[in-house]
Amino acid sequence: MQNYKMTLAYDGSRYQGWQSQGNTANTIETKLETALSRLTGSPVTVHASGRTDAGVHAEGQTVSFQLEKTLPCAELMADLNRFLPEDIGVLALEFVPPRFHARLSATGKTYVYRIWNSPLPDVFGRKYRYPLPQPLDLDTMRQSACLLEGTHDFRSFCGLTRFKKSTVRTVYAIAVERADSIVSLRFTGDGFLNRMVRILSGTLVEVGLGLRRPEEMRSVLEARDRAAAAGALPARGLTLERVYYEEISWVMDLT
Amino acid sequence: MQNYKMTLAYDGSRYQGWQSQGNTANTIETKLETALSRLTGSPVTVHASGRTDAGVHAEGQTVSFQLEKTLPCAELMADLNRFLPEDIGVLALEFVPPRFHARLSATGKTYVYRIWNSPLPDVFGRKYRYPLPQPLDLDTMRQSACLLEGTHDFRSFCGLTRFKKSTVRTVYAIAVERADSIVSLRFTGDGFLNRMVRILSGTLVEVGLGLRRPEEMRSVLEARDRAAAAGALPARGLTLERVYYEEISWVMDLT
Repeated sequence: MQNYKMTLAYDGSRYQGWQSQGNTANTIETKLETALSRLTGSPVTVHASGRTDAGVHAEGQTVSFQLEKTLPCAELMADLNRFLPEDIGVLALEFVPPRFHARLSATGKTYVYRIWNSPLPDVFGRKYRYPLPQPLDLDTMRQSACLLEGTHDFRSFCGLTRFKKSTVRTVYAIAVERADSIVSLRFTGDGFLNRMVRILSGTLVEVGLGLRRPEEMRSVLEARDRAAAAGALPARGLTLERVYYEEISWVMDLT
Repeated sequence: MQNYKMTLAYDGSRYQGWQSQGNTANTIETKLETALSRLTGSPVTVHASGRTDAGVHAEGQTVSFQLEKTLPCAELMADLNRFLPEDIGVLALEFVPPRFHARLSATGKTYVYRIWNSPLPDVFGRKYRYPLPQPLDLDTMRQSACLLEGTHDFRSFCGLTRFKKSTVRTVYAIAVERADSIVSLRFTGDGFLNRMVRILSGTLVEVGLGLRRPEEMRSVLEARDRAAAAGALPARGLTLERVYYEEISWVMDLT
């Protein structure tokens, strides 16, 4: 068996997410597994670094899978890109050692939440940004972001209210930036809970609108109660930008 | 009657263009006239700076129209943006003197043709860029572009082969630029013939691929024959970026 690591981009607009519990027809996972199975002639199971919700995009999702045959990466990638729909694209494909697993080996991720912060219509970015016409105070948002960075129990920011596993995560950095009308909230951490980035973004936006004080983040974290944080912002503004792994440095025998 | 000048953006992907000769239901003009007529309660006719073909986009199309009532621009603009589909947006609206006409008063236009010059899939820009995996030599494209600038008979670059009016136009500048995988061909001129920008782009691309020599542009112009130039590139890569007017400086009595 040959193990592969794939970097995948997708426009999540018309999908039920990476994986769906019920009807699995219209998921990115299904599209990819179908393409791989048809190209190789046998069923293929893929593993992503994590599920993305319905409507969430990816510029650099990572996927691993095993094939019985060792197919050349460049050719397989080109074939997949011909076969996949236009809104899913393979950006890179490489051989990896057998023990590499896109989810289990991941050491961190970067998500970006994009806001169209203008009263004007966002004709060309409407599927990838959340429109918010009211001015945002980025300074107070940055003050809040600092308080959220680090290792905390993020239960207040977890969408699954009866989540039984640990809700402790480490957020390495939250960068709040503006480029013209686009405000980007970029979160890098060791892992994120269900809807965590969208709830963090919604809470930071409430700070930026003056509806919450920046210091409030401390008590929101301490509450360990979903009701203490703001609502989740819509999926369309969220993009999984990158997944991190320990460098794979050991020599492989691919013959 | 009050005359208005509007700046309009649209994603042309799902439209038959600005105006269609036959079935006019699915045009940008129809969408805009319908919205204006419903909001004002009486039929409104709009004039664009020029028609854009099916699938062509606009970041700054200009439209003029007259209304019987003098409605406040900010309110009318906000109402229109609520009423129009998400892929059409009003960016600016202002009062103009009665003799302003979006097409007749225009002194120039800038169109940009965008190429995704990479073998990788263009998941997020696929509707706005033309994918071309082969490397382009921008130096030779720039040499060709210089020969095309200026006042010439552009009959070889006119899509309507039996066009009876003058095919002489002045192209002020053609800028050929690369930003990562995106190559932009930006054309500014006093006016452009049917499909002229897409045929110019196609011909420049053939130069960039080494299929034509840059000096050839002289003989292509001299031929005054559509067959001398290359085919038109697809509509989806083309965007009307801006329309120019003489400054409207005279004082108006709006009371």
